[in-house]
Amino acid sequence: MTGQHNRGKRAPEIVLEEIARIIGGAVIGDEQIKIRGINALDTAGPGEISFLTSARFEDRLPQTKASAVILRERNSLYGGAQVIVDNPKTAYPKVAALFASEIPRFPGISNQAVCHASCALGKGVSIYPHVFVGEGAVIGDETILFPGVYIGNGVHIGRNSVLYPNVTVLDDCRIGNEVIIHAGTVIGSDGFGFVQDGGHSTKIPQMGIVQIDDRVEIGANNCVDRAAFGKTWIQRGVKTDNLVQIAHNVIIGEDTIIVAQAGISGSVKIGRQVMIGGQVGVADHLEIGEGVMIASQSGVAKSIPPGEIVSGTPTMPHRLWLRASNLFARLPEYNLRIRELEKRLEKMKTEREKE
Amino acid sequence: MTGQHNRGKRAPEIVLEEIARIIGGAVIGDEQIKIRGINALDTAGPGEISFLTSARFEDRLPQTKASAVILRERNSLYGGAQVIVDNPKTAYPKVAALFASEIPRFPGISNQAVCHASCALGKGVSIYPHVFVGEGAVIGDETILFPGVYIGNGVHIGRNSVLYPNVTVLDDCRIGNEVIIHAGTVIGSDGFGFVQDGGHSTKIPQMGIVQIDDRVEIGANNCVDRAAFGKTWIQRGVKTDNLVQIAHNVIIGEDTIIVAQAGISGSVKIGRQVMIGGQVGVADHLEIGEGVMIASQSGVAKSIPPGEIVSGTPTMPHRLWLRASNLFARLPEYNLRIRELEKRLEKMKTEREKE
Amino acid sequence: MTGQHNRGKRAPEIVLEEIARIIGGAVIGDEQIKIRGINALDTAGPGEISFLTSARFEDRLPQTKASAVILRERNSLYGGAQVIVDNPKTAYPKVAALFASEIPRFPGISNQAVCHASCALGKGVSIYPHVFVGEGAVIGDETILFPGVYIGNGVHIGRNSVLYPNVTVLDDCRIGNEVIIHAGTVIGSDGFGFVQDGGHSTKIPQMGIVQIDDRVEIGANNCVDRAAFGKTWIQRGVKTDNLVQIAHNVIIGEDTIIVAQAGISGSVKIGRQVMIGGQVGVADHLEIGEGVMIASQSGVAKSIPPGEIVSGTPTMPHRLWLRASNLFARLPEYNLRIRELEKRLEKMKTEREKE
Repeated sequence: MTGQHNRGKRAPEIVLEEIARIIGGAVIGDEQIKIRGINALDTAGPGEISFLTSARFEDRLPQTKASAVILRERNSLYGGAQVIVDNPKTAYPKVAALFASEIPRFPGISNQAVCHASCALGKGVSIYPHVFVGEGAVIGDETILFPGVYIGNGVHIGRNSVLYPNVTVLDDCRIGNEVIIHAGTVIGSDGFGFVQDGGHSTKIPQMGIVQIDDRVEIGANNCVDRAAFGKTWIQRGVKTDNLVQIAHNVIIGEDTIIVAQAGISGSVKIGRQVMIGGQVGVADHLEIGEGVMIASQSGVAKSIPPGEIVSGTPTMPHRLWLRASNLFARLPEYNLRIRELEKRLEKMKTEREKE
Repeated sequence: MTGQHNRGKRAPEIVLEEIARIIGGAVIGDEQIKIRGINALDTAGPGEISFLTSARFEDRLPQTKASAVILRERNSLYGGAQVIVDNPKTAYPKVAALFASEIPRFPGISNQAVCHASCALGKGVSIYPHVFVGEGAVIGDETILFPGVYIGNGVHIGRNSVLYPNVTVLDDCRIGNEVIIHAGTVIGSDGFGFVQDGGHSTKIPQMGIVQIDDRVEIGANNCVDRAAFGKTWIQRGVKTDNLVQIAHNVIIGEDTIIVAQAGISGSVKIGRQVMIGGQVGVADHLEIGEGVMIASQSGVAKSIPPGEIVSGTPTMPHRLWLRASNLFARLPEYNLRIRELEKRLEKMKTEREKE
Repeated sequence: MTGQHNRGKRAPEIVLEEIARIIGGAVIGDEQIKIRGINALDTAGPGEISFLTSARFEDRLPQTKASAVILRERNSLYGGAQVIVDNPKTAYPKVAALFASEIPRFPGISNQAVCHASCALGKGVSIYPHVFVGEGAVIGDETILFPGVYIGNGVHIGRNSVLYPNVTVLDDCRIGNEVIIHAGTVIGSDGFGFVQDGGHSTKIPQMGIVQIDDRVEIGANNCVDRAAFGKTWIQRGVKTDNLVQIAHNVIIGEDTIIVAQAGISGSVKIGRQVMIGGQVGVADHLEIGEGVMIASQSGVAKSIPPGEIVSGTPTMPHRLWLRASNLFARLPEYNLRIRELEKRLEKMKTEREKE
């Protein structure tokens, strides 16, 4: 198998009964088993709990070595202890959280960090060595700044947020509570704004900020540019994957998801609970309505009304795209058939004229 | 609205008359108004100046709260002070520069930076904590190196350049004057060069450098690889957006613009004033002529003569691509129509044979 | 020409006879010439050796200023010393390695680095200033950690590896021997795993690690996410270019090559010696067989059997894609021809009915 062991962690031990209580489940079998970890069905070992989130994986039940499994309903393919819950999918992260390593905290403020005398550091902050915090910056309680993090002048960061190594947050940006920013990401770089003047590009000063609201998670090596005026705004609960580009003045609505390597051009306004696939590009100044789903690699060249599911470059309804893109490979065949039709028609015409 | 306030800044106050003088404009209305900032028409407040760069936005004039507006010609839709100039587009960045925050400078050379004894640091350099400057490196006057910047051995950087946090410039690269490199960007990583030998990849030492000429601006989290031999060369005035990939031995001509997430393969030669859209890919060893425009997401598989406007994968004239890509969604319909034609022709033939 | 000089280096001088011995070649001409460097045919100068790897570049032989050339067979177009070898392509990196700059080593462990008391640092390690090494981390002999590198708790790195500036390796990841990781890359960020619960995204703890085997080279600003469970696994000899995304639980087989800006989604299993082009996207949970080649910008939506060469979105055999994509531009023409066929058929039918 691909890998049996998970990352190192303290080894808590939780009685199955307690796990069932936490996720509101009912135990079938021995409630007193001690559980020491969680794992996938095919990689779990004795002492670990696993879960079945889809009937597709049912065939893994007879072989699993897990000591307990979380399921939607009793399943006779599995002989160990079963925990029955309404929704194993939402129960899974709750159980995983019981066994996950905590994010390691530096105890207090490293004296190898450089924090401007004027900055305000909250209670319980963890500031690692090689961090820089600028003039007038505010860091909320319990927030963790990993090595190599740069916090510009006037930046505000809320409570319980985590900025992983080598994250850059430039001057005056605003970051909320319980925000996670993964390593290498840049928040508040200048928007890509130039005026063409006699063949040269004159830089337009980018005078706005980036605002990131509570519970947002930004992936690794993202770029979120500051606004030309006002703010680039990432609203509550948004999640972005790695290497995502978010240009100046973009607004991203609550709980929207953006997959790796997608790029959102300037001043695009994205609604709530939108799903944007990997490597998608969205042209500037468009509006993407609430609940829209955009398939990976699509090129969005016009605004999309709420609730639509689209694909392709330019975008079209996803089902239509599936049909059309599957016919694309038949273009050489169509080419021949059209020519053949023309020939036959020509021949028929000639024959008729001879009659 | 999306955001009313801009980033924190000192609050200069400039009399409208003086602004008009700087951009060569004529004031209609009260020349003595004090202006404290610049903003977009819909977000500007009292005391701010705004601008109309296109008739498209004219309908915002009656509502704007700006105290003055820069326009191409007198406009009766706006009641406040008007500054008339030939080209509001080029006037705008000049006025914005009056109000923009200055890039914050560390006063001198931080003793928490590590600069090799042999390096040469110019007058007025600003070297933040956690910077590393290698052996024999040369940093020009007034240049700013933000925290986390790495300057390799033998690197030369000119005057008045800015390297934002966590930028890496590897050994022997050359960077000119007034260059801006945004956070997280890597200059001089090894080109992707391997020789296949019995199924394994043998690394080809990358012996060249990267040369970046004056007034270039490189976006955040870019990668510019050093040449196999000689240099990867980014010429004067080039601007790149975020997450752009520039491979070894690429040459990019003056004033060319490359939008986010585009990738330029090895040894490509790009002319002057080319515009390369977001997520474009250019295959290796091609030549892109002066003034070419390449639409976003295009895949360039052959060289492009000067002045062409292209789109698609593979690229074709942009107008043709627009027509063809709009017909792509009709492939299912064409499929049916071709089959129908064949049936009808077959039927006609059968009927004729019966006659 | 694009650039005559290579990066600064110590100037060793090697007699041609010795170079011939190292690559198993035979000298035609003066064996005693002193060689001071290697360069491309068109940029080489006196005292430098060059090479001809393809007959395509033969026309550069008469003009080259190189003092010696490595060739497959004697070539009368060139008057200087010739070194004849079976395979100039594999000989080239061996000769280049003789003249390449060594990676500069910090002598020992900088006292401006922060290494946890419990970590184990091998013999001859080079740990630059501003490096952070976490609790229980193990760094193998002769490994180099450049400034800004972050090594999380419990990370293991083997011998003779190089981590360039601002690389982040998060907790518990495993990196082998002779691994190179270019600047700005992030290893072990959280996989992009969320469960939708009432419109919100609940984070799934990512409990696995990343394992990178011996002789892997990872480009600049890559992201390699840790597994949900078990490991994301990059096997021996894999090479990735810049800005590549590798999601959680991906397995990449030995000696596979991934070009810039490609993205591999979660749980994809890639075989040995696969070639993945630039900007390719691979959807989650697919299998890519041994020796597959995927052309740049392709969108892989289904698994690919071993040995296939594919292109397009969705992927199809490369030759078919070439034909189909070249016909794409003719869609407007097909549109007209189909309509014309229908009109003619209609007309014919009408005429027949009149008869």
